[in-house]
Amino acid sequence: MIHENVDNAKKSKGCPSQGGGDMAQKQKEQQAMIKTNLAQIKHKIFVLSGKGGVGKSSISANLAASLSQKGYKTGLMDVDVHGPSIAHMFGMTELLDISPDQQLLMPKEINENLKVVSVQALMQDKDQAIIWRGPAKTGMIQQFVGAVEWGELDFLIIDAPPGTGDEPLTVVQTIPEALGVVVTTPQEVALADIRKSISFCKTVKLKTLGIVENMAGFKCPHCSECIDLFKNGGGERTAKEQGLNFLGSIPFDTRVVSAGDKGVPVMLEDGESEFTKAFATVVDNILAKL
Amino acid sequence: MIHENVDNAKKSKGCPSQGGGDMAQKQKEQQAMIKTNLAQIKHKIFVLSGKGGVGKSSISANLAASLSQKGYKTGLMDVDVHGPSIAHMFGMTELLDISPDQQLLMPKEINENLKVVSVQALMQDKDQAIIWRGPAKTGMIQQFVGAVEWGELDFLIIDAPPGTGDEPLTVVQTIPEALGVVVTTPQEVALADIRKSISFCKTVKLKTLGIVENMAGFKCPHCSECIDLFKNGGGERTAKEQGLNFLGSIPFDTRVVSAGDKGVPVMLEDGESEFTKAFATVVDNILAKL
Repeated sequence: MIHENVDNAKKSKGCPSQGGGDMAQKQKEQQAMIKTNLAQIKHKIFVLSGKGGVGKSSISANLAASLSQKGYKTGLMDVDVHGPSIAHMFGMTELLDISPDQQLLMPKEINENLKVVSVQALMQDKDQAIIWRGPAKTGMIQQFVGAVEWGELDFLIIDAPPGTGDEPLTVVQTIPEALGVVVTTPQEVALADIRKSISFCKTVKLKTLGIVENMAGFKCPHCSECIDLFKNGGGERTAKEQGLNFLGSIPFDTRVVSAGDKGVPVMLEDGESEFTKAFATVVDNILAKL
Repeated sequence: MIHENVDNAKKSKGCPSQGGGDMAQKQKEQQAMIKTNLAQIKHKIFVLSGKGGVGKSSISANLAASLSQKGYKTGLMDVDVHGPSIAHMFGMTELLDISPDQQLLMPKEINENLKVVSVQALMQDKDQAIIWRGPAKTGMIQQFVGAVEWGELDFLIIDAPPGTGDEPLTVVQTIPEALGVVVTTPQEVALADIRKSISFCKTVKLKTLGIVENMAGFKCPHCSECIDLFKNGGGERTAKEQGLNFLGSIPFDTRVVSAGDKGVPVMLEDGESEFTKAFATVVDNILAKL
């Protein structure tokens, strides 16, 4: 159903659910499936950012990985249609399976507690661009919530593209009970965008758990001196100004870059580092807010 | 006209040009204005990226700055509705003026050769999110091309949001003669997205001048050893694989981060550095391809 819908959406350049004449009925069915799926998921966490490249997908991947390692049943859903990084970060190279009754998409099981779905894992050609306008993306996201065999979950982590456009809006409208985690880097150009994300959260009434500051400092691998690649302290300052929780500061680590390329998130690897310690604090802070 | 349209678009949550009954006439006028404006601009360069945060806006800002310093009449148009960084990078804090006949938006003149327009400079509240779905963004971009007093230009640099969605598609459809410059960082997760951008360029028949690799290496300010923050060589390798020109590799420089926050692009400041030398080579390579 989903593979077919992706093909239909590509052909029609419109909304995947506008294919047949029984559109109203199909939409009703989809709404029911979304409701059923969401009822089985305890917490939905929506990871947002104002600016791209602040490491939102790394944070999503490592958050899902950490929660699964703590024993929570966790799902991770990558709805970034144009730049889906999650599949790569988990080394997902094959197309996702379809359930025996052909109705549902089977998420990739990374470990016994972690299931992942990415639009990337629906594409035959990984390098092909998905040139969709808004309505097609909206249909896709609704399917990812309703037509995926998530089962019972403690957490569903949703990784949406940066900004305040179609995709984040659709996520909020489809999963109104989601709780936002806002990711930023410390410099002002990023903070300007994050203030827009916070304005977005307020406007669409998305409750936020707080702000995570990423790439906040970096230890030179040669001399071990600390370098502020993107300045420092901006995340905490902005949290204070905006009356939001500050969930913690995570240092830049080239291991995160290579882990992303290798297909295993750092939090699923062995070994402690400043990154893993800082990340564990962020996860604890998120759990404490629930 | 533009300020009013922004307000209308926000109210209607639809396309800015759907406000009146004389829609067809207005659209016809807009098309004519777009045609007139584009006829006065020699080269249109569309700076794209697959992934956010690869420094696309920094490259756009510094490219426009460099061209203006070489004596070329240059315009810079920021069409990233959700995360407009360009206004901040040029220290634009005030709303843009309207022409005496109330018909055109006056770009901000940074120096005698450089004019800048950003959606940010149309917003009364800089921290407000623009929660627009696709059609509103399409309308805005068309206005930025047609309803801005660009005058005669040697270059118009267009900074669009990352990905292959509504905004890049609208830019290509509105300015079919634009030439693409694709920006990436060297790591595989970014290259995966850039291959999508290249696929996008081929699909929509956008000619590309080549690939720029950004944040390609970094000299520790303490010990001067080189650190590959995001790996290295991936941009050149991808250019070769895809049969595209490689326009050059630009190192990471914390000065670019602080220049962005300060409101003066590095290429408009005095003083030579590895960044400015590498950037000058990229500009020369772009000019050589025209």
